[in-house]
Amino acid sequence: MTADQSYDPNNIFARILRGELPCEKVYEDEATFAFMDIMPRSDGHVLVVPKAPARNMLDIRPEDLSRLMVSVQKVARAVKSGMAADGLTIQQFNESAGGQVVFHIHFHVLPRWDGVPLRPHTGQMEKPEALKAHADRIRAALA
Amino acid sequence: MTADQSYDPNNIFARILRGELPCEKVYEDEATFAFMDIMPRSDGHVLVVPKAPARNMLDIRPEDLSRLMVSVQKVARAVKSGMAADGLTIQQFNESAGGQVVFHIHFHVLPRWDGVPLRPHTGQMEKPEALKAHADRIRAALA
Repeated sequence: MTADQSYDPNNIFARILRGELPCEKVYEDEATFAFMDIMPRSDGHVLVVPKAPARNMLDIRPEDLSRLMVSVQKVARAVKSGMAADGLTIQQFNESAGGQVVFHIHFHVLPRWDGVPLRPHTGQMEKPEALKAHADRIRAALA
Repeated sequence: MTADQSYDPNNIFARILRGELPCEKVYEDEATFAFMDIMPRSDGHVLVVPKAPARNMLDIRPEDLSRLMVSVQKVARAVKSGMAADGLTIQQFNESAGGQVVFHIHFHVLPRWDGVPLRPHTGQMEKPEALKAHADRIRAALA
């Protein structure tokens, strides 16, 4: 890592984790946190992050990655059943060239349905009531 | 899981793991195996799989997932440095609706360069000598 690839503690996911910014949370445990993507590429699009600081796959501690993946799996199963999806696409982006926009490592969990492509990145925010309705279904599946 | 979503021990990655089909291997340990995607969406596109059977994220044992991710991280770092990439995109597909084609869980590790989009899925196989040249760079980074 070069100096400009260090962890910025004021990235927006760090601020969400500190409660400085709101989010529609679906899951939390000691090491991880999951919440709705506010610009979902499919209905029910969730992000799963570790609480420990890490920029991306290149610097995360292996023990934090292991705990993160246990939560990714748990959330993935709940997204699939809660959203009645046919499948899931999981993505994780590293550095700008890799598609990363927020520099706190996060896994995208995207429910998929047969014949339905992912929506393009539009920069359009989803309505809070739609995010809440999808989160309710995923939280119910996790309960 | 329904009956048709069980693990098929004759999927092509299971056959690669048993040595019944060739591959351009870049990494192997007790629990995991990594090899070049024969239809790379970017030069240096590697697949990382567990040796233990699992269809995808929905059924893999958490301990196998944890060991898999440690290898994904190791391979990701080597792909980035070996291919002199600016970033990485990591993808994992679940069921056909989610983009899955081979039903043995695998993580795609795709090197990315600023301003260079992923190539589309064409079904076109890469030349073996090109795969080998990229694998040589990744193996050297792992050594």
